[in-house]
Amino acid sequence: MPKGNRLKSRLHEIRREMARLGLPALLVTDAANVAYLTGFQGTSACVVMTADRAALIVDIRYYEQATRQAPQTERVLVQGALYDEALVNTLQDLGATRLAFEADALPVARHMAVSWRLPKLELVPTRGIVERAREVKDADELVLVRAAADITSGAILRALEVMSVGMSERAVASLVEAEFWRLGADGPAFPTLVASGPRSALPHPRPGDRLIEAGDLVLIDAGAVVEGYRADMSRTVVVGPPTRKQRAVWDAVHAALEAGLARVRPGVAASAVDAACRKALQARGFAAVHDTGHGVGLDLHEGPRVAGDSEDVLAPGMVITVEPGVYEAGWGGVRLEQLVLVTPAGPEVLTTAPLAIASPCGSVRAGL
Amino acid sequence: MPKGNRLKSRLHEIRREMARLGLPALLVTDAANVAYLTGFQGTSACVVMTADRAALIVDIRYYEQATRQAPQTERVLVQGALYDEALVNTLQDLGATRLAFEADALPVARHMAVSWRLPKLELVPTRGIVERAREVKDADELVLVRAAADITSGAILRALEVMSVGMSERAVASLVEAEFWRLGADGPAFPTLVASGPRSALPHPRPGDRLIEAGDLVLIDAGAVVEGYRADMSRTVVVGPPTRKQRAVWDAVHAALEAGLARVRPGVAASAVDAACRKALQARGFAAVHDTGHGVGLDLHEGPRVAGDSEDVLAPGMVITVEPGVYEAGWGGVRLEQLVLVTPAGPEVLTTAPLAIASPCGSVRAGL
Repeated sequence: MPKGNRLKSRLHEIRREMARLGLPALLVTDAANVAYLTGFQGTSACVVMTADRAALIVDIRYYEQATRQAPQTERVLVQGALYDEALVNTLQDLGATRLAFEADALPVARHMAVSWRLPKLELVPTRGIVERAREVKDADELVLVRAAADITSGAILRALEVMSVGMSERAVASLVEAEFWRLGADGPAFPTLVASGPRSALPHPRPGDRLIEAGDLVLIDAGAVVEGYRADMSRTVVVGPPTRKQRAVWDAVHAALEAGLARVRPGVAASAVDAACRKALQARGFAAVHDTGHGVGLDLHEGPRVAGDSEDVLAPGMVITVEPGVYEAGWGGVRLEQLVLVTPAGPEVLTTAPLAIASPCGSVRAGL
Repeated sequence: MPKGNRLKSRLHEIRREMARLGLPALLVTDAANVAYLTGFQGTSACVVMTADRAALIVDIRYYEQATRQAPQTERVLVQGALYDEALVNTLQDLGATRLAFEADALPVARHMAVSWRLPKLELVPTRGIVERAREVKDADELVLVRAAADITSGAILRALEVMSVGMSERAVASLVEAEFWRLGADGPAFPTLVASGPRSALPHPRPGDRLIEAGDLVLIDAGAVVEGYRADMSRTVVVGPPTRKQRAVWDAVHAALEAGLARVRPGVAASAVDAACRKALQARGFAAVHDTGHGVGLDLHEGPRVAGDSEDVLAPGMVITVEPGVYEAGWGGVRLEQLVLVTPAGPEVLTTAPLAIASPCGSVRAGL
């Protein structure tokens, strides 16, 4: 739970931006934005904020949770299922005449309900006000991001150690997620990906029944979540001695990762990190097929964007992934992904599990 | 993956409803509705359908998956990140002049983008067109719902067997989810709930570090997902010999469950199931604090509504939960939840794990 003064400074920053934009009131409906401003981690809630108030509107299913997670925030209980009614009453109570809303996170139906009930209220579409504030993590957030990254590192490392020939992708995924639980996470931050052999070339390889074979590439892409904060990490290993081609691809991706990480520093364009990864892959004869990374926090994908056309500039406190990959349909793929904190001194890699092409799994070593 | 003729009959039903409502074209943006109409299980896609076409608009991250999961559906690839552009082009291509959209699932920003680019297109808000069709499951869907229910039953039963005094709630949750993987699920349908002792009274008890003690109530509420279809099931047991009060509460909830199930039959109002549960609890001196159930399918909560103010009527092929509960803050709670298929002959309980107040865990029996 964020400390009260932490929440105050988050609200303060949003209010400064609202004042700059001439917005007296803001309706926050994006769930991660609600969590950021109040500490409340559930769904179906929204926040109405003005220069001096911030009210969390929440229904009975989540009221107890809101009391626990957002004790510092004024809470408005929805009566029955009359969510629009509670919102309208709160807006009337606040005396708002001009209300900014999150255009990407407000469904048309709710917009219609509010404008129909409050025809004199001016509704102003906005984008990214809270999202931009979330890009730089504060100290409370970094504690949770670090915890999620540590657990993720530990869990993937453990799965790589225990993994053996004949085990299914599904069993490996189960191992990773069991370690998340054991190490204190609140669960996976996204569906765990495990792909072996040719399946490692798939963009979103959900773990299947395929059994791991000697010589396989095995790709694991997973992350734990701790109090809403997510981690994201990938490792790819070869089960047994790598072929020349596996080694060449792995080394190229590793070089691209290092090249990308070397550019991570405050004041550097996020697009420069992407460019460095692409250039390193091209120098070795490979093409990058996806963006190099993304910001991570309460959402798995958030700002800054780490892509060729990104206009974002890195700043201390941002947390991003650097994750180059090379894939060949029918053969396989290699992705190496680090979660990185931007510090004044450069990149701090949060996902500290070792990077190595060799699978550490015992039964394979025994079989060599 | 749904069979081609299955998808055809789903589209046919939606088109009949569109014709009835005078809607020549429909934009489907709700992810579960997209999955229902195409088989595609990813996010960030939408479907535009008319009387003779149905196009799935999908970006490069999900294109391969769409090709695999929705081979029968026409696919439109979003160029770069220009999602609105692809949508507008498709609408122009279809020659639509009047477009219905899902008011609860279309963000204002996308609505604005379409109306700005196609000022002559009439945009018509709708609600629940596809959702209502989804209430009655077809044969392909029932195969997956049954698989999810079987796995859920097996996993919770196993966790109850292995569970022992001194084990943390977190460890029990980990056990349930490991069984989901082992039994062939694609993961949990929602965050697994495990609560012991007084925590069983919480509305959404995420598993914590509390260690299970002799005499505890332990509540498990979990569900597996199989190819997008979800299950939902709860069991509550006492670890060791129940107290008189635990027995009284458990028996009341069990009686309410049986009373609710007894009302499940085609043609019966869903509110009657809710009323039967409430009446049974009241007869034993307890009050029902939450709705008795909900429809389950591609979404964890979908139609029909099983609540006092529901106007839905049960029909063969509907899948609902019946889940009465009694809670006392500081003491604990009991919830018993079955996933049920409405058949012409009455209810078919899909979650077949036994209902019993006694925890089957060995170490407790040994300690008695």
